[in-house]
Amino acid sequence: MLEELKKQVYEANMLLPKYGLVTFTWGNVSGVDREKGVFVIKPSGVPYEDLRPEDMVVVDFDGSKVEGDMNPSSDTPTHAWLYKNWSDIGGVVHTHSSYATSWAQSGRDIPCYGTTHADYYYGPVPCLRCLTKEELDEAYEKNTGKLIVDDFKARAIDHNAVSAVLCKNHGPFAWGKDPVDAVHSAVVLEEVGKMAYRTELINPKVQPAPQYLQDKHYFRKHGPNAYYGQGKQL
Amino acid sequence: MLEELKKQVYEANMLLPKYGLVTFTWGNVSGVDREKGVFVIKPSGVPYEDLRPEDMVVVDFDGSKVEGDMNPSSDTPTHAWLYKNWSDIGGVVHTHSSYATSWAQSGRDIPCYGTTHADYYYGPVPCLRCLTKEELDEAYEKNTGKLIVDDFKARAIDHNAVSAVLCKNHGPFAWGKDPVDAVHSAVVLEEVGKMAYRTELINPKVQPAPQYLQDKHYFRKHGPNAYYGQGKQL
Amino acid sequence: MLEELKKQVYEANMLLPKYGLVTFTWGNVSGVDREKGVFVIKPSGVPYEDLRPEDMVVVDFDGSKVEGDMNPSSDTPTHAWLYKNWSDIGGVVHTHSSYATSWAQSGRDIPCYGTTHADYYYGPVPCLRCLTKEELDEAYEKNTGKLIVDDFKARAIDHNAVSAVLCKNHGPFAWGKDPVDAVHSAVVLEEVGKMAYRTELINPKVQPAPQYLQDKHYFRKHGPNAYYGQGKQL
Amino acid sequence: MLEELKKQVYEANMLLPKYGLVTFTWGNVSGVDREKGVFVIKPSGVPYEDLRPEDMVVVDFDGSKVEGDMNPSSDTPTHAWLYKNWSDIGGVVHTHSSYATSWAQSGRDIPCYGTTHADYYYGPVPCLRCLTKEELDEAYEKNTGKLIVDDFKARAIDHNAVSAVLCKNHGPFAWGKDPVDAVHSAVVLEEVGKMAYRTELINPKVQPAPQYLQDKHYFRKHGPNAYYGQGKQL
Repeated sequence: MLEELKKQVYEANMLLPKYGLVTFTWGNVSGVDREKGVFVIKPSGVPYEDLRPEDMVVVDFDGSKVEGDMNPSSDTPTHAWLYKNWSDIGGVVHTHSSYATSWAQSGRDIPCYGTTHADYYYGPVPCLRCLTKEELDEAYEKNTGKLIVDDFKARAIDHNAVSAVLCKNHGPFAWGKDPVDAVHSAVVLEEVGKMAYRTELINPKVQPAPQYLQDKHYFRKHGPNAYYGQGKQL
Repeated sequence: MLEELKKQVYEANMLLPKYGLVTFTWGNVSGVDREKGVFVIKPSGVPYEDLRPEDMVVVDFDGSKVEGDMNPSSDTPTHAWLYKNWSDIGGVVHTHSSYATSWAQSGRDIPCYGTTHADYYYGPVPCLRCLTKEELDEAYEKNTGKLIVDDFKARAIDHNAVSAVLCKNHGPFAWGKDPVDAVHSAVVLEEVGKMAYRTELINPKVQPAPQYLQDKHYFRKHGPNAYYGQGKQL
Repeated sequence: MLEELKKQVYEANMLLPKYGLVTFTWGNVSGVDREKGVFVIKPSGVPYEDLRPEDMVVVDFDGSKVEGDMNPSSDTPTHAWLYKNWSDIGGVVHTHSSYATSWAQSGRDIPCYGTTHADYYYGPVPCLRCLTKEELDEAYEKNTGKLIVDDFKARAIDHNAVSAVLCKNHGPFAWGKDPVDAVHSAVVLEEVGKMAYRTELINPKVQPAPQYLQDKHYFRKHGPNAYYGQGKQL
Repeated sequence: MLEELKKQVYEANMLLPKYGLVTFTWGNVSGVDREKGVFVIKPSGVPYEDLRPEDMVVVDFDGSKVEGDMNPSSDTPTHAWLYKNWSDIGGVVHTHSSYATSWAQSGRDIPCYGTTHADYYYGPVPCLRCLTKEELDEAYEKNTGKLIVDDFKARAIDHNAVSAVLCKNHGPFAWGKDPVDAVHSAVVLEEVGKMAYRTELINPKVQPAPQYLQDKHYFRKHGPNAYYGQGKQL
C-alpha cells in the first residue's frame, strides 16, 4: 500500500545525507496520507545506504504499525502526535544535525539575527524544556510530541510560521506541507543555527533583528502579499 | 536579446554553488550592458540545478522588467540602484554566505587583519546601519541600494577599492567589473570574514594590520605600480 | 595467516579517511583473534592510499611481531595492553581526529550534553592524566594502555559502556566488538566532541543532560530492554 | 632546462588545492637545484586549474629570473633568501591557509598542545614581528625572508626542527627537504593550528604539553633513535 508515498518518504530521507544532516542512522523523515489516517516512516536503525522505498513502515496516528516488515523509527510516537494534533502538516523530520543539536544541548532558543532566519521562521526557533522524569518514564517519545504541541500553544507560536523546534538535550524536529518541505526546514534550521552561533561569537552583545525587518522578510515570502519567487508576476 | 550576457550571468550564478556561497536559492548575480542601459539577473526563487541561461531576466536601471518570462530576483532594485549610481561596475552579486552574513548579523565592519584582506579591499569592509522602518516601508530593496551608495559616499570609501558591503541583519553584496569579478569578490569576502572571525577568537585584543602593510599589499595588486600577476614583466 | 581478519582490519582502516578522521598516516585500527591470542594491526607510517590487506602485521598480546614484513604501528603496545586486559573487545582504533584531539589537548572529559552522546556512551568520555616522565621513559605506549585500563577501573567505568577515551595532550583511543565497531565509536566520539565544543560556546554555563535522560537513551539502545533498531519487534 | 624539477614543483603546487590550502591563486611552491644554484617556482597569479609544468619559472638565489615566459610568484625573493641562507632545504611553500593565517593575523606563536604538533615541530611555531615600514619600503619580500632567517637565529630555533613560520598579519611559510615535503609541513601546520584554536576555546587556561612528552614524540619520529615508520625494524 501507499507505494507513491513510500517513494516520496524514501527520497526525502535520502536528502538527509545529501545535505549533511545525518551521521550513520541519526535521523528520520515521515510523510502522511490524511485520507487513510496513516503515515509512512523510515525503519529504525537502518543505514541510509541500505535503505529502499519498500522498507518504509506504515503507522497510524497512535503510533501502531499498520504495515511493514521492520520496526518503525523509535521516534515514531513523536511524529504520530504531531500529525494527530496539527492537521495541516504533511511531513516531519528529526535529525541530530550538528548546529541545531548544539543549540538544543545548550538549552537556548535560536534568536532571529537576520533575514536568512526571518525569511523562513517568524520569530525565534524555540527550545523546549526537558521532559520530567515522570513524562519520560510514562511515554518518552509520545510526550516529546505532546510537549512540542503544548509549548507552541502556550507561547502562541503558529507552527506554520515556525516549522522547527529544539528538544532540550536532544535535537531538532522540523515539519512542512510534505516530506521534502520538512527536510527543507531542517536544512534552513541548520544554516540559521550555524550563523547565529558565529554571530554571537563575533559580537557577544548582538541583539535580534528589528521586528519590522523580520516582518518585512517573512511576509515578502509568505502570505497574500508575498512577492518572492515565481508565484505571481510583479 | 543579450544572449551572450545571459550566458555570462548564468555562468557567474553557477559559480555560487561551486564556491559554497549559497544554500537553496539564497543568492543572485547580475551583469550589465551599459550601452543598452539594462542588466541581466537571475530569476527569483529558481533552484540553481534548474537554472538555464534563457531564464535570465532583463531589467532596466529603475528595476522594471524589459524582457523575460519570469520574475527577476526580489533584490533587483538594489542591483539597479548600484548600476545607476556607479557607472563603472559591470556585475553585482548578493549571497547569504555563512561568514559574511554572520558579520552582517553582528552589525560590525570586518577589520583588515592581514594581507589576504589588504590584497583585495583597501580598508575595512563596512557594515551599514539597518534601514529605518520608513525606508523599509517606502521601498525596501531600492533603499538598500541607496544606503550602500550613500554610506560609501559619507565614509569616503571608493567602491572600486572596497568592492563589497555588509547590510546589517541581512548579508553581503559585492560587485566588480563583470559578473565573474563580482563573484570573485564574494568569495574573497567569505574567506576574509572567516579568517577575521578566527583571528579574534585566537586573540581578542588583536589590532588591524599596520596601514603601511595594507598599502603595500593593496598597491602590489592594484594601480600603476602593481607587480602581482602577469600584467607586466618584472 | 589470518587472511580474513587482515581483510577486515584493512577495511576498517580504510574507513578512517572515508569518515575524515585522519590526515596522512595519523591513525591505526587493529582487530583480534582471541583463539590464536594475536591481533592484526596497520603497519607504521604507511599512507592509506598505499595500504593493502597483506601489509597488515600480526602481533601477540605482549606487542611482539608474529608475522609481517613491516613494522607494526608504533602504538601497538597500547593496543596489546587493551586486548590483554579487556578480554571482551575485538577491535581498537587510535586517531588524531580534530575535535576529539582538541578535547584531549585541553585536558578535559567530554561532558554528556545530550542524547547523541547518551545513545553511545554512558557518562562523560574520560580524559586521562598525562603519563609521568618515568612512565613515559619506561615504556610509553604500553603505559598508555595501562593508564587507560587503570583509570577506567579507578573511576569504575565499564569499558563496554564508554568505548572511548582521551589521552591527555595526545588524542583518542576507541574500541568495540570488532574493528568496524571500534571505528564506529571513533566517528561518534568526533561528532560528540564537535557538538560539546559548540554547545559550550553557545552557552558557557550549560550543564550536562539530566541523568534520567542519559539513562533513557543509553538503555533505549543497549541491554535487555533496548528497543532501537531491528533487534526485536515492537 | 630542469624538466624533472619543474614537474616536481608543478605537482607539489597541485597538492595545495588537493589539501584545501588555497583559494584562487593564494599560494606558491618552489623547489631547488643546489648544483645549478637556481630554483623553480610557480608563476605569479596563475590559477591552479590552468597551471602546466612548463609554466614554472627558473630563478636564481638573488631572485632574478633565469628562464621562463612568465613572471615568477611575487613572493620569489622570500623563497630565494631562504634557499640562500639555509643550504639544507629543498622546497619552500607559502599559502594563506585559513587557520595558519588566522594565527598569523593574531600575532601569536602556535603553542605545542599535543603530540600531533610535537610529532612534526620541536617547540612552538613562531610568529614573527611585522616588518617595519623601512624594511617594507626597502625590499618587502626579500626582507620577509631575512626576518625569518634572523628570527630563527635569534630564538635559536633549528629550521629543520621547526619547518614552518607565521609572518605577522600575512600568513605561513613552510619548507622541507623537497617540494612535497614542504607542502607536507604546510598541511600539518594547518591541522595543528586548527586544533590549537579549538583547544584554547575548550579550555582557555590550557598549558602547553609537558616538555618530556614533546621530546618523546619528536624523537620518536626524528633522529638516530626514531622508531616510527618503516625506517628500521623494531
